[in-house]
Amino acid sequence: MQLENANDDQLRQWEQELSTEYQHILEQNLKLDLTRGKPSTEQLCLSDTLDGILKGNYCTANGTDVRNYGGLDGIEEMRQLGADILGVEPTEVLAGGNSSLTLMFQAMQHAVQYGFAGEESAWKNTTGAKFLCPVPGYDRHFTVCEQLGIEMITVPMTATGPDMDEVEAMIAHDKRIKGMWCVPKYSNPTGVVYSDETVERIAKLGNIASSDFKVFWDNAYAVHDLSETPQTLASIMDYCRQHGTEDSVLQFASTSKITLAGAGVAFMAGSQANLASFKKALGTSTIGPDKVNQLRHARFFPDMATVNKHMQKHAAIIKPRFSSVLRHLENAFANSELGHWENPKGGYFISFDTRPGLAKTVVMMAKEAGVVLTPAGATFPYGNDPEDCNIRIAPTVPSVEEVDGAMKVFVNCVRLASVRQALEK
Amino acid sequence: MQLENANDDQLRQWEQELSTEYQHILEQNLKLDLTRGKPSTEQLCLSDTLDGILKGNYCTANGTDVRNYGGLDGIEEMRQLGADILGVEPTEVLAGGNSSLTLMFQAMQHAVQYGFAGEESAWKNTTGAKFLCPVPGYDRHFTVCEQLGIEMITVPMTATGPDMDEVEAMIAHDKRIKGMWCVPKYSNPTGVVYSDETVERIAKLGNIASSDFKVFWDNAYAVHDLSETPQTLASIMDYCRQHGTEDSVLQFASTSKITLAGAGVAFMAGSQANLASFKKALGTSTIGPDKVNQLRHARFFPDMATVNKHMQKHAAIIKPRFSSVLRHLENAFANSELGHWENPKGGYFISFDTRPGLAKTVVMMAKEAGVVLTPAGATFPYGNDPEDCNIRIAPTVPSVEEVDGAMKVFVNCVRLASVRQALEK
Repeated sequence: MQLENANDDQLRQWEQELSTEYQHILEQNLKLDLTRGKPSTEQLCLSDTLDGILKGNYCTANGTDVRNYGGLDGIEEMRQLGADILGVEPTEVLAGGNSSLTLMFQAMQHAVQYGFAGEESAWKNTTGAKFLCPVPGYDRHFTVCEQLGIEMITVPMTATGPDMDEVEAMIAHDKRIKGMWCVPKYSNPTGVVYSDETVERIAKLGNIASSDFKVFWDNAYAVHDLSETPQTLASIMDYCRQHGTEDSVLQFASTSKITLAGAGVAFMAGSQANLASFKKALGTSTIGPDKVNQLRHARFFPDMATVNKHMQKHAAIIKPRFSSVLRHLENAFANSELGHWENPKGGYFISFDTRPGLAKTVVMMAKEAGVVLTPAGATFPYGNDPEDCNIRIAPTVPSVEEVDGAMKVFVNCVRLASVRQALEK
Repeated sequence: MQLENANDDQLRQWEQELSTEYQHILEQNLKLDLTRGKPSTEQLCLSDTLDGILKGNYCTANGTDVRNYGGLDGIEEMRQLGADILGVEPTEVLAGGNSSLTLMFQAMQHAVQYGFAGEESAWKNTTGAKFLCPVPGYDRHFTVCEQLGIEMITVPMTATGPDMDEVEAMIAHDKRIKGMWCVPKYSNPTGVVYSDETVERIAKLGNIASSDFKVFWDNAYAVHDLSETPQTLASIMDYCRQHGTEDSVLQFASTSKITLAGAGVAFMAGSQANLASFKKALGTSTIGPDKVNQLRHARFFPDMATVNKHMQKHAAIIKPRFSSVLRHLENAFANSELGHWENPKGGYFISFDTRPGLAKTVVMMAKEAGVVLTPAGATFPYGNDPEDCNIRIAPTVPSVEEVDGAMKVFVNCVRLASVRQALEK
């Protein structure tokens, strides 16, 4: 379907055909859901041996009884695992509770209220403190900024990460910019992996930015590859060491999409100065994380080889779903101007851009037809996608058949909305 | 030993005898610890069947798969258990993560920053916001206030709870008082159980206090009885309903000292308005608590009868340690003016008051002799015990023999410090 070369008769004919198809879909009373980036039941079952894995042995390698209070840093085994996942030293890792989102919130709150380098560095001292948000991005990151009163400034994503020319220019000219959100590998939702050059340029921001600048590096999909030859992500901390900017980056990860969603172990990594400052405040609100669950994970994953083998099982479950989405998009929209998308090699999402002004309409039409999509705009700060074009597709939870059914509806809705828009012009 | 009737010769003789005894103690190179209110290994072993209890069945009674994301309230089974422990309705309970301290911190932070009844009710709007702290009390409560910039005002504890005449007078005259810490059952450290009259008077504070007033009711030892005929605590929420003050109380509890310390389930209870407001903010920083661990606890404790039976096993382990402490205190100081203490019927502590001005000296002397006690002053806001007399004794972790050995040292130190003080006068 090439809208550009179509005359009004052709457009009207397409509109009629697609409307008829949409009516048939409505009659099917579908109930399908492509909204949530969460694991399917099949994936969760991969970790069923976690419960009971301790077999009465509650001691870590260094002899700590994990059943009792204490240990704000988490157990050594899990700090090592976090270090391996994030490419840092174990002494630079805090292994926490069940949520990296909680660690991110607490870290930003710490930066706002108390400051990572003492009271003078608290962002609350800066009227109009701002944060850079590559878009499209992750809605829960945006909500954290909003809750903490940090203004969000968007930066476009490219195929190699955020547009670094723009990032550097903004940071150099505005010291009220206190940091930037990054999902550096299989970015939510575009699936982009930041190039080595991008990672190095981000590591160097600490030298041009405000001294209290912090990159929030949410490496949520560090080991979530769908390809057998995954694109590797450079270690930002290694670049920071080269450029003397170790204090400018805070990293996050969790096992939520490795073992159990909401019952895993979250990690925060940073320079020892950053961790020491954070822990001083954290110790007011907790005596320590659930070390019993940490030890379960340590027994389940004695090393990274075990993690990688485990992730291949996830990939085997997820890949057919991603393939189904991509096949539908390819068949319907290749060589058309009706949409753009990335072909991600990992992560949980496929990001689709409609023609400008159509995302909300498509999401609404799909919903009426029984296919729930993430609300249009959710991938932008304040829910405001200025082009109204981005839709995040999350295919992991439905079965392959359900993904197939949902994508038929999606394709119909995109086509129909596009034709109607063309007719109105 | 009656210092009052002793002449200087007698005092000097006692000083010499006690010093000799202290020297002998020093030579023993003891290493004993009465500092931490945490369970002993024997107690932790009572919950060893938690790990593996799920046996592959991850569904709650209502069919929720606990392995996936979601459910900020916690699972229904645990909300019911929390309701039973705290004397409220399940709809008034949030079952959270592994730490009630975290919930208390988050709740106070919410009150300060956002307000439980909208922005206008945020405590940050009040310059010089204050909190009442019955003393002696729990140091971690005080740290939460300090971290959040809330000034602390002390109120004396009596044998029936905080001095309510004083509490009511202060609240009536100062609307900057935003709340009060309470450990209503087996109070940390005095072991006092609040009387029904005290509970009702606290429930009525909402009618005389500032409209954003919140009692933080930390019922940490709700089921931690050492007696077979425990003193019961009235339900404060029932009194609140009578007096129309449901929004003025937030309750907290956890299973940390029921199952595993730091790997249990924490509860927060409040009016539905309070919970709704709290959850709206909480949802920014987490997708939900570890429901897998909640389900383990629900299977372990199908009802309150199971909880109570389990707590009797704890009591059997703890009681001999408490008895040893009390026997030593009784033998050494009954009918003397050298110290005062309560005989707690539950909880984790025995609170001992030396003669004024001696707590720091006694703690230091005991430390030099190899017996670590909680730092003097820790039971008061800002670490400041104006009389320098309160010492918290926590006997659960050491063995009975170790408690016995430590108390011999403690008694010697109290006597020696008291005699030396008398000689200086």
